[in-house]
Amino acid sequence: MTVSPFDHPLLSGLLGDEEAAKHFSVEADIGAMLDFERAVTEAEAEHGAIPSDAAAAIVRALAAFRPDTAKLRAGVAMDGVVVPELVRQVKAAVGAPHDAYVHFGATSQDVIDTSLVLRLRQVVDHIGLLLGENVVRLAGLELEFGNRELMAMTRMQPAIPITVRDRIVSWRAPLERHQERLKELSGRLLVLQFGGAAGTLEKLGDKAATVRAALAAKLGLGDAPQWHSQRDALAELAGWLSLVTGSLGKFGQDVALMAQAGSDIRLSGGGGSSAMPHKQNPVKAEALVALARFNAVQLSGMHNALVHEQERSGAAWTLEWLLLPQMVVATAAALRLAAELAAQIESLGR
Amino acid sequence: MTVSPFDHPLLSGLLGDEEAAKHFSVEADIGAMLDFERAVTEAEAEHGAIPSDAAAAIVRALAAFRPDTAKLRAGVAMDGVVVPELVRQVKAAVGAPHDAYVHFGATSQDVIDTSLVLRLRQVVDHIGLLLGENVVRLAGLELEFGNRELMAMTRMQPAIPITVRDRIVSWRAPLERHQERLKELSGRLLVLQFGGAAGTLEKLGDKAATVRAALAAKLGLGDAPQWHSQRDALAELAGWLSLVTGSLGKFGQDVALMAQAGSDIRLSGGGGSSAMPHKQNPVKAEALVALARFNAVQLSGMHNALVHEQERSGAAWTLEWLLLPQMVVATAAALRLAAELAAQIESLGR
Amino acid sequence: MTVSPFDHPLLSGLLGDEEAAKHFSVEADIGAMLDFERAVTEAEAEHGAIPSDAAAAIVRALAAFRPDTAKLRAGVAMDGVVVPELVRQVKAAVGAPHDAYVHFGATSQDVIDTSLVLRLRQVVDHIGLLLGENVVRLAGLELEFGNRELMAMTRMQPAIPITVRDRIVSWRAPLERHQERLKELSGRLLVLQFGGAAGTLEKLGDKAATVRAALAAKLGLGDAPQWHSQRDALAELAGWLSLVTGSLGKFGQDVALMAQAGSDIRLSGGGGSSAMPHKQNPVKAEALVALARFNAVQLSGMHNALVHEQERSGAAWTLEWLLLPQMVVATAAALRLAAELAAQIESLGR
Amino acid sequence: MTVSPFDHPLLSGLLGDEEAAKHFSVEADIGAMLDFERAVTEAEAEHGAIPSDAAAAIVRALAAFRPDTAKLRAGVAMDGVVVPELVRQVKAAVGAPHDAYVHFGATSQDVIDTSLVLRLRQVVDHIGLLLGENVVRLAGLELEFGNRELMAMTRMQPAIPITVRDRIVSWRAPLERHQERLKELSGRLLVLQFGGAAGTLEKLGDKAATVRAALAAKLGLGDAPQWHSQRDALAELAGWLSLVTGSLGKFGQDVALMAQAGSDIRLSGGGGSSAMPHKQNPVKAEALVALARFNAVQLSGMHNALVHEQERSGAAWTLEWLLLPQMVVATAAALRLAAELAAQIESLGR
Repeated sequence: MTVSPFDHPLLSGLLGDEEAAKHFSVEADIGAMLDFERAVTEAEAEHGAIPSDAAAAIVRALAAFRPDTAKLRAGVAMDGVVVPELVRQVKAAVGAPHDAYVHFGATSQDVIDTSLVLRLRQVVDHIGLLLGENVVRLAGLELEFGNRELMAMTRMQPAIPITVRDRIVSWRAPLERHQERLKELSGRLLVLQFGGAAGTLEKLGDKAATVRAALAAKLGLGDAPQWHSQRDALAELAGWLSLVTGSLGKFGQDVALMAQAGSDIRLSGGGGSSAMPHKQNPVKAEALVALARFNAVQLSGMHNALVHEQERSGAAWTLEWLLLPQMVVATAAALRLAAELAAQIESLGR
Repeated sequence: MTVSPFDHPLLSGLLGDEEAAKHFSVEADIGAMLDFERAVTEAEAEHGAIPSDAAAAIVRALAAFRPDTAKLRAGVAMDGVVVPELVRQVKAAVGAPHDAYVHFGATSQDVIDTSLVLRLRQVVDHIGLLLGENVVRLAGLELEFGNRELMAMTRMQPAIPITVRDRIVSWRAPLERHQERLKELSGRLLVLQFGGAAGTLEKLGDKAATVRAALAAKLGLGDAPQWHSQRDALAELAGWLSLVTGSLGKFGQDVALMAQAGSDIRLSGGGGSSAMPHKQNPVKAEALVALARFNAVQLSGMHNALVHEQERSGAAWTLEWLLLPQMVVATAAALRLAAELAAQIESLGR
Repeated sequence: MTVSPFDHPLLSGLLGDEEAAKHFSVEADIGAMLDFERAVTEAEAEHGAIPSDAAAAIVRALAAFRPDTAKLRAGVAMDGVVVPELVRQVKAAVGAPHDAYVHFGATSQDVIDTSLVLRLRQVVDHIGLLLGENVVRLAGLELEFGNRELMAMTRMQPAIPITVRDRIVSWRAPLERHQERLKELSGRLLVLQFGGAAGTLEKLGDKAATVRAALAAKLGLGDAPQWHSQRDALAELAGWLSLVTGSLGKFGQDVALMAQAGSDIRLSGGGGSSAMPHKQNPVKAEALVALARFNAVQLSGMHNALVHEQERSGAAWTLEWLLLPQMVVATAAALRLAAELAAQIESLGR
Repeated sequence: MTVSPFDHPLLSGLLGDEEAAKHFSVEADIGAMLDFERAVTEAEAEHGAIPSDAAAAIVRALAAFRPDTAKLRAGVAMDGVVVPELVRQVKAAVGAPHDAYVHFGATSQDVIDTSLVLRLRQVVDHIGLLLGENVVRLAGLELEFGNRELMAMTRMQPAIPITVRDRIVSWRAPLERHQERLKELSGRLLVLQFGGAAGTLEKLGDKAATVRAALAAKLGLGDAPQWHSQRDALAELAGWLSLVTGSLGKFGQDVALMAQAGSDIRLSGGGGSSAMPHKQNPVKAEALVALARFNAVQLSGMHNALVHEQERSGAAWTLEWLLLPQMVVATAAALRLAAELAAQIESLGR
């Protein structure tokens, strides 16, 4: 099915980003979940929270494990999360007596949230690279055309002449601030979620802190107390994604406005029309505006999801799933499009 | 790819709706686009706007036509819409000399918007049926448990006793008003879009009105002047979808609140937990709240898209594609879940 | 204080609408609340639910009643609604023994929601008139300039020539559909809210239906069962308001785009700049876009408020208060600005 | 007028914050604007960009200046911004020949944006203090009740016992991260806006950088290149405000849920009901949820405003005015309410 343009075989050619999207595939998600299950097993065994031979059996079973996805789908419909059924299948693969130590001390949210963070770590790298590429491309345009003249437009009216550099800086400087912001938020975002049934790791007793730290280290994530009902780092990421697409939306809007008359900008490879073969539509520029408004809208939902009731809110948590992956892909797509658009600019100013 | 839960092999088991989603598949979209191309060809031939033999050749070619989807994807990336490449492929299939009459007088937006409306017609039927089913199920609960007592809760505090009927009415009455609203808006929504390059059907000369009426009749849609830059009927539909999910979200929230203590409601088949086997989570109820907030958020984007510049805004139009199909599927899923949830209610009140 | 531009002594000159705003003053609100209290007293006395002499004493006291607003403010801070303290003051004005029949059988929400609807009735009239004025003004522009030529702009690029009429129709036709929609929704919106503590009018016994009908008739509202936790009519109104501002935002955006070059449109009385005296900024056109996006955003909150828990949700109800009045004034302001902008148009097309 | 609850004489008792709101009064805004005009005059005179005697005359006139607010209001309606008329009045107060140096090299946006930042600096201090107070109060509750038992609720269902500390930490930890975030963003936010007509400070020639640095120092703001069309720091602030209210909304929702049954929490001073004197409504808790959703919604608009066309967008800029001040006051109000609510908690857990 292809309800979302990010998943659509045709529309994702314009609006999607394959590299970002692949981190939200079922395979990637389950892969990261199984990474969590293996790492938690190893960490617990190393610190004596579960028997070593059980751990060995579980790790061995996980290496060969292939999920029954039809049953997983039915499990989600029943339980609202995939983990109970996934754990059931893993336990069956491990078999008695060691199956009792599968997923020991963990809960569904530990698995799902940590799987998300593991994949966001890769996404953040990818998006960071794309952001850097955009900064470089805009700097290139500045080098090439920066000294040329441009008529400043204020309130949609010709104002006074400025240089092309002046306008390019208004596209590039926010991106550089976004790079700074990404560094700041990453430390808060890329941390393990591990709390057990209600956040207290009660099954691990006095080994809880040690196991958690070991688990974080194994997964390459920061160690931190559980945050299952504290969703601020995810909402902060969503805000950052929308800041990026918002800044790129301004770039797109400016390009589309310049392209109207055709003297301020020359673009190669504009889009064609089925009725008017003479046209060169600034398709990528328009898509940047659409993606900016898309993310601005989704962001509101991610902030609504901060009202996360008690120790776990099925409603607020599910709402995040409906929003965040698409915001990530929208941002990666916008960065890809913006870099391509910058590359299409053959001339700026006079 | 599976960025959106509505497309996700696992999550769509809970959050999706297959029947609604299939109308947004590539196959359904292209099928409806080709229906448009065939119907416009026939309508134009019948009224002498294109030669009959050309029309016959086109209709014949369309019947056998199989699109090259890889090229369609590249076409979207280039042109921002699939139609230029689709028309190119259809023309190639028709061949000279009749290919000149393929898509005659039409433009991309005619094809895409009409394809959307054709599929929305089926979606509206499907959703209307689901809505009716919910009304019936709630009436059934009223019949069974309506006279029992329930403690009214105002501002999250016990107030005074009411009957179960009183609360069920607050779930059902809005749905009945939504049925009324759907009738009102359908006439504005289910109309043909046909305007040509800039809305004037300039290639059809004085035959424009007759061809348009014939085309509408062939497609089973209302006839109306082009509305390519007037998106109010789509925003109105989006508002209606979100009214429906909002009302169902209240139902879900009420059920989840009642299920806390367990004396006001008894549910069969709650969701299981990976850490706490004793739990019966009100998964469907929570999903209803999530879908309500999801649609409430998307709606804002559909209204932003009303600011549709000039004769065609790539930015505003693309924004609709990112929002409306998911709103439709969210609504169908919520209606399906609500009916299932109503069926899970084994007891209400005391 | 003047946190909102709609209340701001300076900014409301551009963004506000005095006529609409006055219905949201404290005076108007309390006036309508006291109208409710008087009418409910009379209706109850007429049908024998309270003694006639008590009713007479209450009506007399209400005629002379002047609220202590400092205490009302403190009451809101304490109770979350103004009514408990207002009723306390009215009871004190009535004095024993008749004070026991003040607000008899009613609850805070009856008073507040009905006061809102009473004022919305006037607002809807006002907005309906402004809407009609806009339709007329656009028709006037069509009459004057409709046959002139204009270059259609699709995807921000010159397409083919159209007439000025073609574009004006895209501004006017949605407004005419909004007139139709307003008629449809008014019947659902302009109804009494009267349910007592938890919606059952339990204190009125078998006189409940008669008293409610009489009360509705006295207030000039439709009679309907209580809807205290069913907020769909308010969300529907919000959607309508945002449809109106969205359509006007398109008009504004088109005017601003046309004003860039200056050949397609000539406007009188554009805004001045502190730095560039030569400029004529399309201020009203830009404000229309801002108000459209403002309402599109607020609408999302009104739909979130549909998730109204149980018999009364303080959270969802309070959220409406933060959103709906400003949406109403934004819409009235946009209609006023659009009519003024249409009057500023001295020439369209070539 | 009192369209917004933040300005409403009664509702602001619950939903407003006087200290925050006063920074958005006309007096505060004009005061800060005149501070800018004085400081720019002094900075320019000190670096030889304008004559010293002109500067002295301007500073003298500014000290005695009293604006004609009726004319300012008309000016906003005409120009879309207050500055052209304000400068006209200041020039008249200065008189020939020195009036030519009033507002020299500056533009409206310099004055308005810098006035905003000057006031945000004070607001940020105020909000920072309130945030600290909340952290302290929650720590106090933890000290008093932290070791008591509480039933964890996951997905609205009883899970396993936790301590009161566990839940309080989920309220407090996000606030501490918000303190960290505030420090990070302040450096980007609290900077001067000074660019002249189109951002190039063209009237100051080679003195531009020196004058700008001097102006920043005089105003106590960071020095930075103009950011008139780069609105990311304001959108970032808006995101932070909504993170704060979102976290407090979770606190409010949790308190309201605990207050349902009455055994997990004991609150003093709940709100009264006009129909049910026995009730103790958790009014402040509900208001926290409402303010969280309010800000979540507004945030979407602030991110839409990132699409700020060219050198100055009247539409996007005006949209900010409609949103940001209310977000600030909503946040201050939520922090005030949360601290009051924490003080109302007489007991937590068992």
